[in-house]
Amino acid sequence: MSSTATAPTEPPAESSGPVDTGALRALLDGRWASVRDDVRAQLGGRRLHPDPDWSTEEHRAYTTGLARELADTGRATLGFTGEHGGEDDIGGSVTSIEMLAYADLSLMVKAGVQWGLFGGAVQALGTDVHHHRYLRDIMSFALPGCFAMTETGHGSNVGAVETTASYDVAAGEFVVHSPTPSARKDYIGNAARDGRMAVVFAQLITPAGRHGVHALLVPIRDVDGRPCPGVTISDCGRKAGLNGVDNGRLVFDSVRVPRDALLNRYGDVAEDGSYSSPIENQNRRFFTMLGTLVRGRVSVAGSAASATQSALAVAVRYGLRRRQFEAPGRDGEVVVLDYLVHQRKLLPALATSYALHFAQEELVVRLHETQTGGSSSDGAETAQRELEGLAAGMKAVTTWHATHTIQVCREACGGAGYLTENLLPQLKADTDVFTTFEGDNTVLLQLVAKGLLTEYRDYVGDLNALEMVRFVTEQVVATIAERTSARGIAQRFRDPAPDDPAWHRSLLADREEHLLATLARRLRRAGADGADAFAVFNAAQDHLLHAARAHVDRWVLDGFDAGLARCADDGVRALLEQVRALYALSLVEADRGWFQEHDRLTASQSKAVIATVNTLCGQLRPHAGALVDGFGIPEPWLDAAILRET
Amino acid sequence: MSSTATAPTEPPAESSGPVDTGALRALLDGRWASVRDDVRAQLGGRRLHPDPDWSTEEHRAYTTGLARELADTGRATLGFTGEHGGEDDIGGSVTSIEMLAYADLSLMVKAGVQWGLFGGAVQALGTDVHHHRYLRDIMSFALPGCFAMTETGHGSNVGAVETTASYDVAAGEFVVHSPTPSARKDYIGNAARDGRMAVVFAQLITPAGRHGVHALLVPIRDVDGRPCPGVTISDCGRKAGLNGVDNGRLVFDSVRVPRDALLNRYGDVAEDGSYSSPIENQNRRFFTMLGTLVRGRVSVAGSAASATQSALAVAVRYGLRRRQFEAPGRDGEVVVLDYLVHQRKLLPALATSYALHFAQEELVVRLHETQTGGSSSDGAETAQRELEGLAAGMKAVTTWHATHTIQVCREACGGAGYLTENLLPQLKADTDVFTTFEGDNTVLLQLVAKGLLTEYRDYVGDLNALEMVRFVTEQVVATIAERTSARGIAQRFRDPAPDDPAWHRSLLADREEHLLATLARRLRRAGADGADAFAVFNAAQDHLLHAARAHVDRWVLDGFDAGLARCADDGVRALLEQVRALYALSLVEADRGWFQEHDRLTASQSKAVIATVNTLCGQLRPHAGALVDGFGIPEPWLDAAILRET
Repeated sequence: MSSTATAPTEPPAESSGPVDTGALRALLDGRWASVRDDVRAQLGGRRLHPDPDWSTEEHRAYTTGLARELADTGRATLGFTGEHGGEDDIGGSVTSIEMLAYADLSLMVKAGVQWGLFGGAVQALGTDVHHHRYLRDIMSFALPGCFAMTETGHGSNVGAVETTASYDVAAGEFVVHSPTPSARKDYIGNAARDGRMAVVFAQLITPAGRHGVHALLVPIRDVDGRPCPGVTISDCGRKAGLNGVDNGRLVFDSVRVPRDALLNRYGDVAEDGSYSSPIENQNRRFFTMLGTLVRGRVSVAGSAASATQSALAVAVRYGLRRRQFEAPGRDGEVVVLDYLVHQRKLLPALATSYALHFAQEELVVRLHETQTGGSSSDGAETAQRELEGLAAGMKAVTTWHATHTIQVCREACGGAGYLTENLLPQLKADTDVFTTFEGDNTVLLQLVAKGLLTEYRDYVGDLNALEMVRFVTEQVVATIAERTSARGIAQRFRDPAPDDPAWHRSLLADREEHLLATLARRLRRAGADGADAFAVFNAAQDHLLHAARAHVDRWVLDGFDAGLARCADDGVRALLEQVRALYALSLVEADRGWFQEHDRLTASQSKAVIATVNTLCGQLRPHAGALVDGFGIPEPWLDAAILRET
Repeated sequence: MSSTATAPTEPPAESSGPVDTGALRALLDGRWASVRDDVRAQLGGRRLHPDPDWSTEEHRAYTTGLARELADTGRATLGFTGEHGGEDDIGGSVTSIEMLAYADLSLMVKAGVQWGLFGGAVQALGTDVHHHRYLRDIMSFALPGCFAMTETGHGSNVGAVETTASYDVAAGEFVVHSPTPSARKDYIGNAARDGRMAVVFAQLITPAGRHGVHALLVPIRDVDGRPCPGVTISDCGRKAGLNGVDNGRLVFDSVRVPRDALLNRYGDVAEDGSYSSPIENQNRRFFTMLGTLVRGRVSVAGSAASATQSALAVAVRYGLRRRQFEAPGRDGEVVVLDYLVHQRKLLPALATSYALHFAQEELVVRLHETQTGGSSSDGAETAQRELEGLAAGMKAVTTWHATHTIQVCREACGGAGYLTENLLPQLKADTDVFTTFEGDNTVLLQLVAKGLLTEYRDYVGDLNALEMVRFVTEQVVATIAERTSARGIAQRFRDPAPDDPAWHRSLLADREEHLLATLARRLRRAGADGADAFAVFNAAQDHLLHAARAHVDRWVLDGFDAGLARCADDGVRALLEQVRALYALSLVEADRGWFQEHDRLTASQSKAVIATVNTLCGQLRPHAGALVDGFGIPEPWLDAAILRET
């Protein structure tokens, strides 16, 4: 489509000839290409988009039907352990979720709730008794379930949930209870309509005292779909999007469950009420539990990336067909993607989507290796924490990219982009919540920065400022400062050149290290006598977020380079090197205020960056169609009316 | 609400005590305060938000019902001339539309289509015969109508619409026809369900030839609601938002209308087929016609501003109630608006909403004076063009502010912000199209820049690059350059001071003039022999948009100052001076890359700007509740569930 639609008004491309789209797609498909092809083969022949005039109930029923269809393919078994019928393929399970996100986002979330969150929690936090009893029914969707962590009063600070699970020694049961209105479990997927059981996160209480947050399996509906005694279920109602998913609310009025309802891998209660755990520290225990659930964030990042690619495919293809305004020396009206500002809307975003796609592949590989490696050495623990940091950072950066880019794509299609028949409204509405679910992006970036400051030496999962300060020791500051200083010198000796990939990386790496080193110095002051630790910490909050963002940006660029290193096709590599340059320089351009403030760019270098972004946009313009074709999205999933009309 | 919800964790405010919210609101209500109070009195006691699970038809019926209710109040007569039952109050009519935008955006658009676009076109482009025949029925909603300008193939370039209106001398009739699929009228409000008549924009053809685009009144449905012979009506279907408005498509198959169907104020066809017009030049004639319809853009700007204020009111109030994470030295969890990054999300946006509100008041006054002044001198013509430029610029800047800010407000409310019961999804979905309807923002900003370059000496309504270049004469360049140079010197002699209002203005004014002068010099090169005018123009397109934006930003700041000058309450003025500083400095901060590149800010001044924005956020934090209360939005319209729960 890109070649036939190339504008007659377009001057000859400076780059090489047409790229091999097949080779491009094979590179993007990556390690789990076969999973991608399976999903394409199963669902790629159909347009799955919901009827926009369905009632909420109709949409939910449709989505549940699709989820059952998925279960029947057996693909839901990918992420579960082999001993209970799974396939031990964590990377494959995440990749299959990413593929669903191209097809239908309600389906992706419904599947993610059932098999990722609910099933994943039973797998990761439970033990044999739970696996044996439930995993097969979870995989087959015979037991639809919920992941009931967030409460009305606590979303980001989940360590402070108010629901209690008190052990009654005499009865040998736990009593699950919502003591206050704000203890209500809220926004829970699968709760309003389908869920039969919930993994409920609650403060565990035994006669000896409180042991922090643990998860228990609590039946919420009987086989006839009626709420269980003591469980009040209500409906979150209509949402901005994802209306195929039945989000609801759960309130527990002293609901009794047997002792083995406790998912007891990280903490157990004996019949006599005595508590035991392999992890002594309560905070550390909770964040270890949460860490096992990292797959959810990785999946959201990947799904946001997929949805963004779909939006870009629609907008770029439309931009190659749509003409508006005549111009001197041009035949007919100008193809809108020939306008510089239209290129600037879409092409840096497209380059960023490429970068994030390659980085996501690296993240999924790391998740897969970490979770299937199974070592328990100190190195493995640090690797797990690094993984959590990267997952948090990638989730934040990718979902914000989705929100921004899908909006831009909508606008780039004008009034047509506002019509549901052109897919963009659904993509926009469905992805909007990604920036805040599975962890609010702003909170996640703070976790990233804290991980970096402490070099992942311990869990710093909550926002307690004093705890933070304790970690920012002299030693950490010294280490970071030393590293920074060495690289800073290398940086100053390098001649800047807008088209030099090494310069791009050194700019991003230097920014990351400088922001981190200066942040460490600022925060250390919070530990001084008489300092108001919160005030010091709060005043540095924008600095902290910037440091985290700079870290993710540099890591994503490295992911792009890893993708390039895998590329065997010269034409594809040459094209992707331009895409990489556009990604890197558009980041530098967006933050050129900072680069000048910190003497990393002179005024004239900064202007040169802008000019180079413009040049790269023009050079990539003839390849824009091929670049979106390379995503390999089945055409029925991109069946927008504006791409059908002539 | 703001005072009771102020956090116990909050350090004492540096500013003075509580502000007089009544005085603040009176200042914001401005010249048409009585219209605002009328709408509040009529509709302010009710929650008007649609049921989110309504079908499209149910929502449309509801909105039409509300529009009829409005018509019955007689307020629709505000914008029409007195001789036919109107009230000659243009400013009042725009203000009433802005008020509807707080209440229900589908209703606002439905009213805007009927009385602003359809009625406004009959009023402005028609003559006595049309006024006498139709205006009363339009005002009473007895005759629901459409404004059929945009076609599937032409939205921004409306001068190139393909629909034809050919005069048949023998029959004394016009034949209205859609010659191609892309000539289909598209996205037409009131077309899919209610419209009985349409103002159709078409290329007028007489035996002597073509005369450019003119508007005709074409019946599209009979009294029983059946499409008229030759008229094919279809439905645009579900949209991202505004589903109370029935957007549709119209195709004409040689539809005959009498000669007096032509709205003939600017061009007429005599019985014998001879054409006459008070304006010789075809292009100029068309843009004069379009210019009379400027009210639509002013209304969209104002409505976007209202919706943004509603979103800010919800998010700020929630930010004052919501607590998350404990902090050392604080009782309980921290109120989220105490976090710097939460302040940074909401408070600069709130300051910008204040700035835009005052600027909108200036724009409405200017519209009112221009359209009720009635002079036809050269000065009046330049004033009209300046008004069009300002309306275009304000529409672009205000609607982008809305899209950005409502998104941020959604995210600032987390998962709750995604639920329809909390209003933000509807606000977001409904306003999303504002950035592209009534003129695509990117195209509008180009019109602004062209107006500035030509000093509004002639119409440059389309994007023809050569025509543009013709206007960028030596003289214009010299004038702009001279002015810039004088101000530039003044600027360089001024000591920068982050808290000096004069410094803020000089930064913005200097940026505007520098961008414009350098743009003029760049574009002049396009006129050189052998130059590819389109290429030169296109390469400067980002520069052009930046210049336009800089102009609007400076103009908005002047609007803020005009509002301050009207302020009689010392406490309110002191608070608003801080708000103004935050508005101005957040603009400077966002563009500090440019200010450094052009030697307007040193690196350390640039850092000081960031620090001052942070300081101002902290200083305004205790007044955030009062600032949103000042908008005077009736509480039932802000009835979000998250603000009800305890």
